[in-house]
Amino acid sequence: MALPHPLSALSSRETTLARDIVKEAHPGQLLFFRQIYMLEPPKQEVLRFLELEHSGALTTSSPRPDRCAQAFYDIIGGDQKSVYYESVVDITKQKIVAEEVISEEHQASLTLAEFDIVVDACARSKLFQDKLKEIKFPEGFEPVIEPWPYGAPDLEDGNTRFFQALVFARDTRKGQDSNFYAYPVPLIPVMDAVTREIVRIETPATGGKGDSLTAKTHAPGLLDHCAPAEYVPELLPGGTRKDLKPLMVVQPQGPSFSIEGNLIQWQKWRMRVTFNPREGAVVHDVRYDGRPVMYRLSISDMTVPYADPRKPYHRKQAFDFGDGGLGHCVNNLTLGCDCLGVIKYFDGVLIDHEGNTQDTKNVICLHEQDNGIQWKHTDWRTGRAVVTRRRELVIQFIITLANYEYIFNYKFDQSAGIVVEARATGVVSVVNIDPGKTSDWGNVVSPGALAQNHQHVFCVRIDPSIDGSENTVVQEESLPLKMDRKTNPNGNLYEVRQTQITTSQGLDAAPFNNRVFKVQNLNKPNPITGKPVGYKITPPPTQLLLADPNSVQAKRALFTKHHFWVTKYKDHELYAGGRYTLQSKTEIGGVHDAANRCDDVLNQDLVCWSVFGLTHNPRIEDWPVMPVEMLQLHITPVDFFTGNPAIDVPSNKDIGSRLTSGCCKEEQPKL
Amino acid sequence: MALPHPLSALSSRETTLARDIVKEAHPGQLLFFRQIYMLEPPKQEVLRFLELEHSGALTTSSPRPDRCAQAFYDIIGGDQKSVYYESVVDITKQKIVAEEVISEEHQASLTLAEFDIVVDACARSKLFQDKLKEIKFPEGFEPVIEPWPYGAPDLEDGNTRFFQALVFARDTRKGQDSNFYAYPVPLIPVMDAVTREIVRIETPATGGKGDSLTAKTHAPGLLDHCAPAEYVPELLPGGTRKDLKPLMVVQPQGPSFSIEGNLIQWQKWRMRVTFNPREGAVVHDVRYDGRPVMYRLSISDMTVPYADPRKPYHRKQAFDFGDGGLGHCVNNLTLGCDCLGVIKYFDGVLIDHEGNTQDTKNVICLHEQDNGIQWKHTDWRTGRAVVTRRRELVIQFIITLANYEYIFNYKFDQSAGIVVEARATGVVSVVNIDPGKTSDWGNVVSPGALAQNHQHVFCVRIDPSIDGSENTVVQEESLPLKMDRKTNPNGNLYEVRQTQITTSQGLDAAPFNNRVFKVQNLNKPNPITGKPVGYKITPPPTQLLLADPNSVQAKRALFTKHHFWVTKYKDHELYAGGRYTLQSKTEIGGVHDAANRCDDVLNQDLVCWSVFGLTHNPRIEDWPVMPVEMLQLHITPVDFFTGNPAIDVPSNKDIGSRLTSGCCKEEQPKL
Repeated sequence: MALPHPLSALSSRETTLARDIVKEAHPGQLLFFRQIYMLEPPKQEVLRFLELEHSGALTTSSPRPDRCAQAFYDIIGGDQKSVYYESVVDITKQKIVAEEVISEEHQASLTLAEFDIVVDACARSKLFQDKLKEIKFPEGFEPVIEPWPYGAPDLEDGNTRFFQALVFARDTRKGQDSNFYAYPVPLIPVMDAVTREIVRIETPATGGKGDSLTAKTHAPGLLDHCAPAEYVPELLPGGTRKDLKPLMVVQPQGPSFSIEGNLIQWQKWRMRVTFNPREGAVVHDVRYDGRPVMYRLSISDMTVPYADPRKPYHRKQAFDFGDGGLGHCVNNLTLGCDCLGVIKYFDGVLIDHEGNTQDTKNVICLHEQDNGIQWKHTDWRTGRAVVTRRRELVIQFIITLANYEYIFNYKFDQSAGIVVEARATGVVSVVNIDPGKTSDWGNVVSPGALAQNHQHVFCVRIDPSIDGSENTVVQEESLPLKMDRKTNPNGNLYEVRQTQITTSQGLDAAPFNNRVFKVQNLNKPNPITGKPVGYKITPPPTQLLLADPNSVQAKRALFTKHHFWVTKYKDHELYAGGRYTLQSKTEIGGVHDAANRCDDVLNQDLVCWSVFGLTHNPRIEDWPVMPVEMLQLHITPVDFFTGNPAIDVPSNKDIGSRLTSGCCKEEQPKL
Repeated sequence: MALPHPLSALSSRETTLARDIVKEAHPGQLLFFRQIYMLEPPKQEVLRFLELEHSGALTTSSPRPDRCAQAFYDIIGGDQKSVYYESVVDITKQKIVAEEVISEEHQASLTLAEFDIVVDACARSKLFQDKLKEIKFPEGFEPVIEPWPYGAPDLEDGNTRFFQALVFARDTRKGQDSNFYAYPVPLIPVMDAVTREIVRIETPATGGKGDSLTAKTHAPGLLDHCAPAEYVPELLPGGTRKDLKPLMVVQPQGPSFSIEGNLIQWQKWRMRVTFNPREGAVVHDVRYDGRPVMYRLSISDMTVPYADPRKPYHRKQAFDFGDGGLGHCVNNLTLGCDCLGVIKYFDGVLIDHEGNTQDTKNVICLHEQDNGIQWKHTDWRTGRAVVTRRRELVIQFIITLANYEYIFNYKFDQSAGIVVEARATGVVSVVNIDPGKTSDWGNVVSPGALAQNHQHVFCVRIDPSIDGSENTVVQEESLPLKMDRKTNPNGNLYEVRQTQITTSQGLDAAPFNNRVFKVQNLNKPNPITGKPVGYKITPPPTQLLLADPNSVQAKRALFTKHHFWVTKYKDHELYAGGRYTLQSKTEIGGVHDAANRCDDVLNQDLVCWSVFGLTHNPRIEDWPVMPVEMLQLHITPVDFFTGNPAIDVPSNKDIGSRLTSGCCKEEQPKL
């Protein structure tokens, strides 16, 4: 039997086999498995395979890259001190081909089981329980421990693996779904991950405007001025609104896409999707009408630094991809809630600490959606109007990281455009503030609850393949020109200036110059325009990291220094913030280092990295669960085709649409 | 019987009455009517009325503002020379209350009937017909005249009213829907609108890169290298794609909105909509949960300058609102094409040159749409997920201006946000280019067809009413701070700096400072956050006008100098580019002049104007009809409420959604 497609995730069987190979290599040792997932084959091997596949020459006996797993695990010694290993298991050859002990300066990404250990340590800690006793919880309230990554370590923390936790209080009389975030307790226990003991309790300040960074009023009744803020429908004081009528998306003939394993085909698009615990959904080998567009498209990284200067809030900085391995935090998506219409779900494979596979259902969903008009023209002489709708294919995944959630969409449209969309929602992170105070460090969104100012900075990794792997990035700007008798006699001309990017580097958005980055294949001129075929990437013009460049927050997120990076392709160089972000002190092996190689990127296999973000100074309207904030990255063909690729989209009327006079009863389509 | 609501457009009966009053005032004179539509009553009168209305104290005998019409017409003298009048007719009192002869330096906006005159003049013109004869039209082709506004006049043009026309050729063998834009003829006839004669024929250059501004190859066979570019489905060589399955939006219980005249109520929103030939759909008296948010929201202006420096292309600059009166260009919207679901259409009243009313059907459509997830949170401890969909109410209108179309949407959502969206589509404007050449002035999108670089700059007028008319604009930025032992010991703090705008002025977008403009009511602190209630306007960070500030293009579009203007409210000050844009030489009475009054805008009745645009260097993918380019303006509550207004949106599953394995046949929901 032929091996699976090289761009398909490891099956449960393959994952188990990888685990077994690791276990066999360490007989008698205590192993704590963290993650096992596919290590993608070297690109050159995959390209050779894809050439066979797309030319129709592939047979079951064609050579295929070996199937490989990357396995991350601790080997726990007799002193309970563990050593963190990262190994590559060749599943085809059934052997470990690389095994590396990770130096103590790096931390393995955390697992949810470690969060359970934090909760347990708090329960066992006399230090912490004594602190809790000093606080007068309102009747019926009990503490809730919310483990967090430790963030940027302080100098004195050395390489110790720590966890911190925020503490809240839940009104148990309302059941387990009552929103405990409305009752923030100003205690932050810190656990040493090796000893599994709470080593200290931070007591953060609770002051406001005009107060010092350490002002605190740790009165026993510090929750008394807090107020409930429920979001679960059955706990809403007024219930849910009653005047919203159903709106259904119905596809009586089924979807327009077809699925074969992880291969998706839709409206001339063809691509593969995989899931892994670090990046979530990844899209591979994207082609339109048979022509390669992308080798790989992924959400590479994200950092969420908080801007409250008060100790220990300076350590609130999450790298949600690198710290956690978001796979552990992925949502199991639900029909009719997370998307409408006819839905295809893909499952993922995760493991527990024994390395046993856990089939995780519905981690990615796929559906079509209508997004208004795609193109329209009316001839005013004849009145003849042709109008087509814009249908989009959406690959979606959602992650929950403690209080927050992120919704990621890869959207493909019929005019051959790609949009990567991030939506931020969930509960804004709040801390206790004294009664009646306001703050410059955030907004009081509920009595006693200060939602701190923070940022979300994302990085999307774009590995283009514009009619092949040899591509070039061109920066294009539209710039004003002075009036000039010879070339610009009326002053209406502007210059479209193109600059080839020849060396790997970081670049910035410049919307007032209409700056875009075109990824072109210089070897393929467009037969009509004469320009190289290409796609343009419009860098979202958003604020970059605000933290002082000398701060640890900034140093560990060097990828946020620029909006757009161009680097030379290197196998397995996937993470903008570096491979190890948990408790990192500086970014190592991220896109900043990659760009610093000053590689030749002219007519080369290159990678683009788009960085954009959201400065989130919370509104009260973000409380208790925030309406989505949306960010979009647009990747659009420019002179890639010989005309609008959507010109052949039919302009049929939707037969499901109905007229109304605005009175709700008169028209009911027969269902 | 009580008068109609003061914020409702004139009925057909009222319009006719206004026309009759004008005619009676000019017995025996030849009148040429251009436009008649409502003149909105002074705001103070409307506010008094609204106070009665919203307090429930309104009766049929309550005082109401008089109904007034603005009537625009020419009085044609014996010498055929016409004088342009603008009058105000008090329909209630049945008399003309103001009549003004408009100075010759201003031009009345054009009407489509004038376009017919241009076509007719070309047919009659020996000058033009002789020029046409010099061109060898391919067999079966005939010329098509595309009238255009004359644009910015040259110095020697004085105040003469001109029209120009672009000329194309249509393959008559393919019928009247064949795309003639693919065959641009380099002739531009110019008509004197008074004499109705073609006074000259411009013969624009047809050169390319390296050629002079006047290089032309006016060979007789200049269309021979052009190629067909059809978009009407029955003319597509390959037909339409067959693999797109229907996607229907079904609302079995009808829409969630209710309509009463021009009053729309939906999900706690309440507003009125009117249509007029200058601005299209206008939204009035927008309230959420009974609280005023907007007095008026409208698309105020737009300019489309072309950047080809060659004479006479420097005169290609449309002001699609002011030049044309877009009402004449509005699309009659079609069920199931222009929007999906349950649709309410609104009709408009336009007039012909006799002043006879023409009921224009379906000029505005109203519908609901789903836009993905609105908010979501999962408690990772319990797995309990609450997810709500984002339902939006869309007020849409579409205009066709010769080759181009614009789709405008006012979108209201359940979390009390407003989005104004502009989509540009239609056929990019092309001119003839010699065989084999490319150009710095645009892109060759089809053989012989150069799509010229151009911009679209829009202005949205926002007349806010944040809990009343006395509002203040605050510029807010998030700015980096240096690390500092006392206030910023860890370097993670950033400053949120607020600056009150006290004097009317133009301001700019600054996305890298996260600049937003908050419209606040300083008299109403939020009970929880302590900050003034408000809405924020995020200025879209787009490129402004590129033309040299000394060019006529720039001088007549001073509104494009800034992204955001704050002015003091003044009755009837509605048009950012000034009242008269057709053949204007400079912007007069627009937002630039309004801002220059340096009015006090602190705690005043003020107006905000948001300017944003699109620099459009055409791609070949924009040919022959371009996929929509989208621009969005976001207006979002900030500390206006006491929590997420959408927290009570039910999280019901959509019962219409279906699972699929990706094979199209297996699941068919029963319809």
